[in-house]
Amino acid sequence: MNAPLKAFDEASDLPSLMTELAAGARRAARMLALASTEQKNAALAAMAKAIRASAKEIIAANAEDVTEARANGASAAFIDRLSLNDARVESMAAGIDVVRGIDDPVGVVSETWTRPNGMRIERVRVPLGVVAVIFESRPNVLADAGALCLKSGNAVILRGGSDSFRSCRAIHTCLVQGLREAGLPEASITLVPTRDRAAVGLLLTGLSGGVDVIVPRGGKSLVARVEAEARVPVFAHLEGVNHVYVDRAASLDMAKTIVLNAKMRRPGVCGAAETLLVDKAAAATQLKPLVTMLIDAGCEVRGDADVQRADARVKPATEEDWGTEYEDAIIAAKVVNGVDDAIAHIEKYGSHHTDAIVTEDEKVAEKFLNQVDSAIVLHNASTQFADGGEFGFGAEIGIATGKFHARGPVGVEQLTSFKYRVHGTGQTRP
Amino acid sequence: MNAPLKAFDEASDLPSLMTELAAGARRAARMLALASTEQKNAALAAMAKAIRASAKEIIAANAEDVTEARANGASAAFIDRLSLNDARVESMAAGIDVVRGIDDPVGVVSETWTRPNGMRIERVRVPLGVVAVIFESRPNVLADAGALCLKSGNAVILRGGSDSFRSCRAIHTCLVQGLREAGLPEASITLVPTRDRAAVGLLLTGLSGGVDVIVPRGGKSLVARVEAEARVPVFAHLEGVNHVYVDRAASLDMAKTIVLNAKMRRPGVCGAAETLLVDKAAAATQLKPLVTMLIDAGCEVRGDADVQRADARVKPATEEDWGTEYEDAIIAAKVVNGVDDAIAHIEKYGSHHTDAIVTEDEKVAEKFLNQVDSAIVLHNASTQFADGGEFGFGAEIGIATGKFHARGPVGVEQLTSFKYRVHGTGQTRP
Repeated sequence: MNAPLKAFDEASDLPSLMTELAAGARRAARMLALASTEQKNAALAAMAKAIRASAKEIIAANAEDVTEARANGASAAFIDRLSLNDARVESMAAGIDVVRGIDDPVGVVSETWTRPNGMRIERVRVPLGVVAVIFESRPNVLADAGALCLKSGNAVILRGGSDSFRSCRAIHTCLVQGLREAGLPEASITLVPTRDRAAVGLLLTGLSGGVDVIVPRGGKSLVARVEAEARVPVFAHLEGVNHVYVDRAASLDMAKTIVLNAKMRRPGVCGAAETLLVDKAAAATQLKPLVTMLIDAGCEVRGDADVQRADARVKPATEEDWGTEYEDAIIAAKVVNGVDDAIAHIEKYGSHHTDAIVTEDEKVAEKFLNQVDSAIVLHNASTQFADGGEFGFGAEIGIATGKFHARGPVGVEQLTSFKYRVHGTGQTRP
Repeated sequence: MNAPLKAFDEASDLPSLMTELAAGARRAARMLALASTEQKNAALAAMAKAIRASAKEIIAANAEDVTEARANGASAAFIDRLSLNDARVESMAAGIDVVRGIDDPVGVVSETWTRPNGMRIERVRVPLGVVAVIFESRPNVLADAGALCLKSGNAVILRGGSDSFRSCRAIHTCLVQGLREAGLPEASITLVPTRDRAAVGLLLTGLSGGVDVIVPRGGKSLVARVEAEARVPVFAHLEGVNHVYVDRAASLDMAKTIVLNAKMRRPGVCGAAETLLVDKAAAATQLKPLVTMLIDAGCEVRGDADVQRADARVKPATEEDWGTEYEDAIIAAKVVNGVDDAIAHIEKYGSHHTDAIVTEDEKVAEKFLNQVDSAIVLHNASTQFADGGEFGFGAEIGIATGKFHARGPVGVEQLTSFKYRVHGTGQTRP
């Protein structure tokens, strides 16, 4: 069904191949920047249709990847991330449908003003250009990222984990079919056609201006490598060491609901809470119920001396726990002396991702929201809302914790830049 | 009057010194992010007052720098950039007054929306953090950059050319006095207190997260070095290879006015036109008047064969001319076959800075504005408007030609990032 892998693996001159791919992506980006919303949506519809129609082929290609990964001794968690079935293929197609429904950000005039000399200036959204997405074993990232980049008018070069190569190739075939049906350049969505790991290093160099931004999608070691080596801008977050601070003026019921959801709804997502901070002034009434609730729900609690006294099952926390992203049913817990102390703790140990306060005191909430220097700060809501879909962005390519360009969920709007269009009537500068 | 330079030049451990400066700037940045507009404006007012009151001391310190630079054989142009007099000192103070008058971007809610579950999300502007500005001989950059960073709530670490060290120290003393009078941390505006050139290299490393963005202000070699070596984001433009395209449907009078202004108003600014493109369909009537006008105004014209035929004084252009930023009274000129050919030329040779079209045809203008991928595109207006002040930003720290975060003039708003503030009533994620 698929071409043998061998041909791809024998790229005799990888740097030339990559430079050529980038040049093709650049040409496609120029055309995509001018493509109409209708044309992009037609491509997205055709892509979803092709994925649904090719579910069998995709799952068969994926089965070959899974067999190989198993033979190589991959872990059960890895195999789960890699594996596709009918439901997951349908979910990929449905994800593309969602992106089709998002408003096109390109060409939107975000501001317009007129100067005293009569010149009218417009600030208008334009695509970034060429996006490189480096991901690991989940093949669905290919469809997500391909769709989001297309909608935002960007060409994308995708490089998946070599273990998912056959799956990616099968999905990519469907995306290209969609592009072709809509009359858009096939190089709009390019899959690096080799498993050679050196391709990643070449992408990170930016290929001499061929790549405008790199988006790593994967575990900490991938993201850390990309951030350390990339010579072009990166949308990435290393960690979500997120806090829930339960203030003296919190409703205990609300605190319990939010803390439980923030930690336990899905302990492995980047918006999951990793540290619980409880106000000393309310510890007598709130600490025990919160800690006991978490432990009863199957969460390991690692606490300071005060927290250990609240429940005999609490394990002692070490200094390291305060900065750890467990991504698991474990939470660090600490008693702090009011909102100022909570803010100081978060600024010292947090990762500027997502932090929440539970309180009925609006003034205290305002202080927390203003002073905690994180991409997302919430008052009386769960940290698990840190998600582009939950923000109403339709979909996201990731969450950025840097302060440059994008911060928080990176949706189609964050995948654009802008230009100034100036309309004059012969103005010259005095 | 000033402390001897020696003490500063003997920094025995420069890396420790720089790390310490960055840590101080970070602490100041945390406080500045929360400072009120009134407090920042009070500091700016006191800074301008101190500069005016210390004009004599500043000019005396500058005279020592100028004497040393002369002794070292500096060029006349260099001495001019370095030199301060009463008018230039007053212009520095006036520049700070302008920044004081700009709206405070920090805390501005740029968007707000409510989710179906009742959560209200606000996108609010926050400072970037710590900005490093690396500049060359013009000491006024210190006052400009210090004021803009303060207004936008950022701490700034300034590193001037070693030739302007005494001047910078005298100006910096005034800025710190203003900060002190307003009760803001002195480390909000830090001058690297050594002439050791290794300090620049250390700033470019980002000092282990101590610096959030680097702004080079100076010639091509400085900007190129910063872009090549910086391990943190950079706001920079390498060149302004700007074009004016005179379309077949242009008014000749308007074309003449705009072309003359775009090239000759100040040939050395980054918004100056470097290439004139004339539509073949109107060359018979427009080429000669435009070329003759330029040459008569003292501009050297380097043209292709068609342009050379228009005026005997035209010199032949080489391939290199199409990509050259002359920053001088020289222009490259070429006949192109309509707007599509003009766009293709600009995309091939331009630097994505500022490009203009002169035409009475709205459709052609729209095509040009949409398809030329430059930070600023103008219709019937001079390229010399590429300036933050002219855009109404009050002042600018530079012009960015990248597509990330800032593009075009970088004013106080471009010196900010944003965060999401989420207001809930106990929402959890299903």
